[in-house]
Amino acid sequence: MKSTQYIGNKTFSVIDKAKVDPLSDEVRIKVAYTGVCGTDVHIYHGMMDKRVQMPVTIGHEMSGTIDAIGADVTNYKVGDKVVVRPLDDRGVLPSDKGFNHICENLKFIGIDSPGSMQQFWNVPAFTLHQLPKNTDLKLAALIEPLAVAVHDVRLSELKKHETAVVLGGGPIGLLVALVAQQTGAQVFVSEINPKRIAKAKELGLNVIDPTKVDLIEEVKNRTENRRADVVFEVAGVQATLDIMTEVAGIRGRIVMVAIHGQKKEVDLFKFFWKELRLIGARVYEKEDYERAITLVTENKVGFENMITDIQPLTNIQSVFEQIDLNPDGMKVLMDCQQ
Amino acid sequence: MKSTQYIGNKTFSVIDKAKVDPLSDEVRIKVAYTGVCGTDVHIYHGMMDKRVQMPVTIGHEMSGTIDAIGADVTNYKVGDKVVVRPLDDRGVLPSDKGFNHICENLKFIGIDSPGSMQQFWNVPAFTLHQLPKNTDLKLAALIEPLAVAVHDVRLSELKKHETAVVLGGGPIGLLVALVAQQTGAQVFVSEINPKRIAKAKELGLNVIDPTKVDLIEEVKNRTENRRADVVFEVAGVQATLDIMTEVAGIRGRIVMVAIHGQKKEVDLFKFFWKELRLIGARVYEKEDYERAITLVTENKVGFENMITDIQPLTNIQSVFEQIDLNPDGMKVLMDCQQ
Ligand SMILES: NC(=O)c1ccc[n+]([C@@H]2O[C@H](COP(=O)([O-])OP(=O)(O)OC[C@H]3O[C@@H](n4cnc5c(N)ncnc54)[C@H](O)[C@@H]3O)[C@@H](O)[C@H]2O)c1
Ligand SMILES: NC(=O)c1ccc[n+]([C@@H]2O[C@H](COP(=O)([O-])OP(=O)(O)OC[C@H]3O[C@@H](n4cnc5c(N)ncnc54)[C@H](O)[C@@H]3O)[C@@H](O)[C@H]2O)c1
Ligand SMILES: [Zn+2]
Ligand SMILES: [Zn+2]
Repeated sequence: MKSTQYIGNKTFSVIDKAKVDPLSDEVRIKVAYTGVCGTDVHIYHGMMDKRVQMPVTIGHEMSGTIDAIGADVTNYKVGDKVVVRPLDDRGVLPSDKGFNHICENLKFIGIDSPGSMQQFWNVPAFTLHQLPKNTDLKLAALIEPLAVAVHDVRLSELKKHETAVVLGGGPIGLLVALVAQQTGAQVFVSEINPKRIAKAKELGLNVIDPTKVDLIEEVKNRTENRRADVVFEVAGVQATLDIMTEVAGIRGRIVMVAIHGQKKEVDLFKFFWKELRLIGARVYEKEDYERAITLVTENKVGFENMITDIQPLTNIQSVFEQIDLNPDGMKVLMDCQQ
Repeated sequence: MKSTQYIGNKTFSVIDKAKVDPLSDEVRIKVAYTGVCGTDVHIYHGMMDKRVQMPVTIGHEMSGTIDAIGADVTNYKVGDKVVVRPLDDRGVLPSDKGFNHICENLKFIGIDSPGSMQQFWNVPAFTLHQLPKNTDLKLAALIEPLAVAVHDVRLSELKKHETAVVLGGGPIGLLVALVAQQTGAQVFVSEINPKRIAKAKELGLNVIDPTKVDLIEEVKNRTENRRADVVFEVAGVQATLDIMTEVAGIRGRIVMVAIHGQKKEVDLFKFFWKELRLIGARVYEKEDYERAITLVTENKVGFENMITDIQPLTNIQSVFEQIDLNPDGMKVLMDCQQ
């Protein structure tokens, strides 16, 4: 089988390897598609060299079918379509209060242990979610980032009659907007990149370019001055942090999806004045995966428009080089079946 | 009757004035005690000269009895003990979504209109809360700041088996800690001022001096590593903003009580990583007043220890001067009955 390895220095190698039999509590997955996530690009850029153990097979957005089953695995059979929820929470402690998905000792499969950018992948059975027979395996490779979006929207408690503003229309922001729209809420995406604005429109989303239109005034106009009930911060820049506390209305909920590596300036006065709430959100829980699977299988929103390129796995080096050259693309998948 | 006026330039005057009959929807209160709030001190310092209309009678923490009743007021009679909830929400709009206590056009009685630092005070009847006959009118002057604390603890959803850390042991912080302790939760106050540390101990609170003890380690030790379930930021300094995201455990709730006049640095990464929540909290709602009245009337916690001085109203100038000289005091009341 073909496998890939990040070996440092912006370099992937493609190697031939023997398939390995799954341990008693594992399955071996024949990977169909694997997507490239922002984190994978960070790894490629060497920004996580201290954390990953090179040479390492990365990747955690994927779909596939079961190829072999460990002795103690009972709920799955060869041929089942599956996705992996790449959270290894076996180190969970009582002090994690049952929040296994963010437990202190969490290991992220595909970063802290081998990932899906290979033809066959052995994983513990507890990470699996079964897909319906009719799920498209291309779209299924979007389930992992979609589950992030589902988690964010669930924690926001967005309701039908409410208005949500999504700050940032990258892959995660657009998925958040699509999921938010499914609740029946009025949704606006704020984005400054013309290609991503075009993509958001193609997905049927309302987009505002805050460099062209006064975002606050526009949202006030569209909400009879209520402003946003929910704001998703998915851009990760100071400009959107400044806007989030402005565009949120009284008792507005702001979901912090973006990862801010440094301390940033926040208008805490507005939190006091309008009794705003900030809700930190990280990855997903079991139920978010189940909901993402339903959304992808029903596919009422045209998730195929999120996929901007599909390349053979063996092209991995040029796939990452192309992403650097064209950072405006949405989701790039690698086909692991050939 | 005697009334007082802030006339600018750190100066109050005491004047003689005729009592005024209440309008049809008003009552006239014979003020018993009125407390000095941090906001009153700000006004005295000239920091709100743009907002207040000098000469102005300030004050909003008080207790009293009804002295006269307007033609249309039905629920009250002369002699009733009352407190005023000093929020004039008559300008409320649909865009306030029913959050009248923080509505965009809110007027704060005692800042935006005349206050309680006088012997008789006319207020709209809708601002009144009736006190039980046995309520001590001295302690009742604490109901307004206590209602702030009740509101904060209510919004935190603090539960019996949980741990709360209160950052800052000023008047508001100590009231928050006392109310939090009533829920049965384990409560710690973090305070650096020796006089206030002593006061907190006198009130039976657990106090940690973070300049002497490692606050994070101490809280971890006392929670089997869970850290705080709820954190109240009641100090208003960068040091406590830095600590709040550290001392909070997984999914911890941080209540922002302090008023931060400028944008401040916040560790948003920790919000993401531990799925923390920030809850802005401002003043109080009706039910918070009712709960504060019950707490003061039952007085299981020795609220009298919060009162560090009582002076005649006519001493107002020296009262404010003394507060500047001795900023470590807790609540100072003025007796308006003589
Ligand atoms: N919470 C989680 O578990 C989780 C999971 C995955 C990703 N993330 C984070 O979510 C964020 C978004 O991920 P992504 O892959 O979509 O990133 P991305 O960088 O592709 O998207 C960010 C978008 O924000 C836009 N933007 C920049 N400045 C803007 C401004 N002033 N106003 C409006 N839009 C602006 C950019 O043009 C870009 O399209 C990142 O911070 C990522 O680390 C979090
Ligand atoms: N949300 C509301 O509606 C509302 C209502 C009233 C007051 N407030 C605000 O609440 C805050 C507290 O009010 P207060 O009257 O008690 O103020 P205060 O200034 O008397 O008390 C603050 C306390 O924090 C302590 N402190 C300072 N640095 C510290 C540190 N590093 N660690 C621990 N403690 C530290 C100080 O020693 C002081 O005792 C103020 O910001 C005030 O404006 C808010
Ligand atoms: Zn990812
Ligand atoms: Zn006050």
